[in-house]
Amino acid sequence: MYTLLVCYDIVGDDRRDEVSAVLSVHGAHVQLSTFECALRTKREVTAARAALKRIIDQDEDQVRIYQLGNAAMDSRVIFGRRRLEERADFYIV
Amino acid sequence: MYTLLVCYDIVGDDRRDEVSAVLSVHGAHVQLSTFECALRTKREVTAARAALKRIIDQDEDQVRIYQLGNAAMDSRVIFGRRRLEERADFYIV
Repeated sequence: MYTLLVCYDIVGDDRRDEVSAVLSVHGAHVQLSTFECALRTKREVTAARAALKRIIDQDEDQVRIYQLGNAAMDSRVIFGRRRLEERADFYIV
Repeated sequence: MYTLLVCYDIVGDDRRDEVSAVLSVHGAHVQLSTFECALRTKREVTAARAALKRIIDQDEDQVRIYQLGNAAMDSRVIFGRRRLEERADFYIV
């Protein structure tokens, strides 16, 4: 399992919706510009990355992808009760 | 050194500016709602977390903090040439 944190600044609404659609297949839309994704195979990771790269405008937009290990996920801290969407395994402090 | 990735959805402009001010002391404002921070001590981490928790509105806002190890930082991928601010050690694909 590959846990990816994807953060993005996308200028165009259509492109942002497309990015969101690609990512929502794989995980939770945890903040307006952030997804926590769980992908099963390296092939899924490669395909998702290729799709994101194809969708964005290379000059206007930016996507950041971080592959998180268990330690990073275990260290995750969430302040505030605002919720957009969450994966099942999270905790609040 | 503690590398923290901080992502936030903050409704109020003033609170968002305050969060940004706290984080900009420690790192780069890499996207509109995302900072990559490098903190030197556990005490700095504790103080920064406390400040963020104090600033935000617990009902309206959300801050997510991920402590990233070297593997997560090495795995970081950035698509798109949009730049807000970057730390020195990053690479583009």
